[in-house]
Amino acid sequence: MNTELTREYVNELRAIIDQRNDHAALEMLGDMHPADIAEVYGNLSIDEAKYLYLLLDPEKASDVLVELEEDDREKFLEVLPPDVIATQFIHHMDSDDAADVIGDLTEEKKQEVLLHIDDVEQAGDIVDLLSYDEDTAGGLMAKELIRVNVNWGVATCIREIRKQAKDVDEVYFIYVVNDENVLLGILSLKSLLLASASTKVRELYEPEVRSVRTDTPSEEVAQIMEKYDLVVLPVTDSIGRLMGRITIDDVVDVIRDEAERDYQLASGITADVETTDSAARLSRARLPWLIIGLLGGIVVAAVIGRFEEDIQINPEMAFFIPLIAAMAGNVGIQSSAIIVQGIASNSLGLESTFRKLVKEFMVALLNGLILSGLLFLYNFFFSDSLALTLTVSASLFVVIVFAALFGTLIPLALYRMKFDPALATGPFITTMNDIMGLFIYFLMGRLLYAVFI
Amino acid sequence: MNTELTREYVNELRAIIDQRNDHAALEMLGDMHPADIAEVYGNLSIDEAKYLYLLLDPEKASDVLVELEEDDREKFLEVLPPDVIATQFIHHMDSDDAADVIGDLTEEKKQEVLLHIDDVEQAGDIVDLLSYDEDTAGGLMAKELIRVNVNWGVATCIREIRKQAKDVDEVYFIYVVNDENVLLGILSLKSLLLASASTKVRELYEPEVRSVRTDTPSEEVAQIMEKYDLVVLPVTDSIGRLMGRITIDDVVDVIRDEAERDYQLASGITADVETTDSAARLSRARLPWLIIGLLGGIVVAAVIGRFEEDIQINPEMAFFIPLIAAMAGNVGIQSSAIIVQGIASNSLGLESTFRKLVKEFMVALLNGLILSGLLFLYNFFFSDSLALTLTVSASLFVVIVFAALFGTLIPLALYRMKFDPALATGPFITTMNDIMGLFIYFLMGRLLYAVFI
Repeated sequence: MNTELTREYVNELRAIIDQRNDHAALEMLGDMHPADIAEVYGNLSIDEAKYLYLLLDPEKASDVLVELEEDDREKFLEVLPPDVIATQFIHHMDSDDAADVIGDLTEEKKQEVLLHIDDVEQAGDIVDLLSYDEDTAGGLMAKELIRVNVNWGVATCIREIRKQAKDVDEVYFIYVVNDENVLLGILSLKSLLLASASTKVRELYEPEVRSVRTDTPSEEVAQIMEKYDLVVLPVTDSIGRLMGRITIDDVVDVIRDEAERDYQLASGITADVETTDSAARLSRARLPWLIIGLLGGIVVAAVIGRFEEDIQINPEMAFFIPLIAAMAGNVGIQSSAIIVQGIASNSLGLESTFRKLVKEFMVALLNGLILSGLLFLYNFFFSDSLALTLTVSASLFVVIVFAALFGTLIPLALYRMKFDPALATGPFITTMNDIMGLFIYFLMGRLLYAVFI
Repeated sequence: MNTELTREYVNELRAIIDQRNDHAALEMLGDMHPADIAEVYGNLSIDEAKYLYLLLDPEKASDVLVELEEDDREKFLEVLPPDVIATQFIHHMDSDDAADVIGDLTEEKKQEVLLHIDDVEQAGDIVDLLSYDEDTAGGLMAKELIRVNVNWGVATCIREIRKQAKDVDEVYFIYVVNDENVLLGILSLKSLLLASASTKVRELYEPEVRSVRTDTPSEEVAQIMEKYDLVVLPVTDSIGRLMGRITIDDVVDVIRDEAERDYQLASGITADVETTDSAARLSRARLPWLIIGLLGGIVVAAVIGRFEEDIQINPEMAFFIPLIAAMAGNVGIQSSAIIVQGIASNSLGLESTFRKLVKEFMVALLNGLILSGLLFLYNFFFSDSLALTLTVSASLFVVIVFAALFGTLIPLALYRMKFDPALATGPFITTMNDIMGLFIYFLMGRLLYAVFI
């Protein structure tokens, strides 16, 4: 059942597309899942993909459109006229997918597409959803859900569900509201299935229901669904009226995206890129951090430049420049990473910043002692200069402590100031720590050489 | 409904625990969700937590046990006798949670606990589950599910579901099997609810069902559920018999863990640690990479040592050591990160390794030209030495190209050799690139200084 995309398959398909053999092409797509078709598209040229796309029936084509990578989707939508988008594609989509697709269009095209949607209710739902910030519960939710009134009986319920269920792909829960549409609780299909026809919703429903508000940030939504193992979460407005529901699959994307963004920031890549992107795009995504790194390197060069004479007299000082710089960077990144991850998974706990710093300080003292001890032993046996041996070990110790404290403080400070704490990882902190570390190193060198020679 | 843990709350609770006021303590826990109670525990000392834990009724205590962080859980289980674990806690758990808890015990205690489980069927399920590798579908799945025979009618079905549903927390789908327990398809509760009593399962069920085998790696399970937006996925043995089912909440944990592991490897942390862990544990988790970094730094020092005379004559060569080292590291990590992420999200596409290298080469050429151009301009205006200007720019260019190629090749090679490609990020590649980069830098310096002075 699980389709593994092979190179042979793609080559065969491309040959068929080349011959413009509609029948054979459709046959090759067979009854593949839209997500698989979207994956096939990722391996075709835009023209080949467009050809295939227009062969599909509109309902399947809509599903594929939803599954496509965002930039591939934008390319497709650019070439399609607004009325085709509205009547052929949007028509078959759930409100949240439709809002995502329409949200990517230019302002002008967005209006045109909305005007072409026949179903007034759907158009209304989409306009409602577009008004929410993308990164909030409102931006994640879909309008399609099954709601029943708390005063109904089971028989009325089943009739209503039959009517409403047409719009909803998969029913996990039925939401119970009062006459004002205020969310009161949930009714599981299981309990409905096992109840007798004369029972009232009032007696069956579960009044304890976890919900979020439309303005809850999507990261918080993800944390709540993850913590309480929820498959679907209702969304209410500020006075508790039921507005929509978020399903776990949308939240899985939020979790994945968040993790990828942190990872990319830590590795110095600024935009969402993949190996399959073009060289120019890959280059652009990496240049910003590299340029920061370059500028940092130039500042470091200027710092070392102030110690030119020291180097001329004791050129062996230069040998350990990379070691000091690398250790400052590594220690700083380790400290930041733990904070960034703690923030992302909401597991920082209630320890105060001060206690975190104290603990980080202890860790740094311990690691600093061990590492500079090791380095001292090495130099003691393999270097002729006692001054060098002392300088390198002592400054390594000091540098490790400073780097750990900076690494802890900076992401916490960024977080307090509402910046993304992950900015602290990556080239930024490395560069800062390089500058600090080498300054300490040469200063200490000047001091210790004066004493020991 | 969403409980936000505050420091005031924890302080108040600790005061109550201090007074050993059972009633007030239970009142403070109120009807909190087990996940919230587990979070409270994370902020208490082990003695305080133990006291609270023994106040809870066994069913709730079991749920809390499942929600606890793994190391907190181990501490709890160590002090509880096997018969209490079996009869009070395991008894109330789903088979997958029970297997997770028992799997963490020592071999001896594991056997004792298993012997104390009264429910023979549950004990059998747990033993079955323990036999699977933790990182496979078998290790993730639960045995509890609702299965119906394809030959039954709707009335029989509902009767059976009523019977089986007691064991299953939430019912999303009903699995349809033949007389040999081979999985044939699924039946949604929705279709059952809307069908008349005389309909047969045969006419209602959906024969297309995605499933995995017990030996499918958990990362692949996560990719499949994510790609096809599945909430639950049935697991079969090698001849298609239905063995269990995996729910999305378990997979969310897999995704989160995988992302965290990659992130931690990239930041040079070897074990799963959190800010709330002890200083000694935090230190141990970081030392291995730091020691590798230190050894690398010593090798780099030896490499530079071979160019001691060059530095003595041209001490300005030393100024740009950190710049070259940092750029080599940054470029290498960027290249590796894209590959590691592509592997993790299964989005590498079908491009061959060769094409990836060619593309990476193009990106490196482009970035290398821009960056060494910028550096050339800076040095041209601010440095007196043409030889230095040329050396720094030319070697930066060469180093960027090499670092990018290494950064791409090494994670791909690790992946081919079945190692974790994320090992390539972090201090390992940085150190390698430092050595390579500085060797190129000084070699080029010797060459260019000979020509231009």
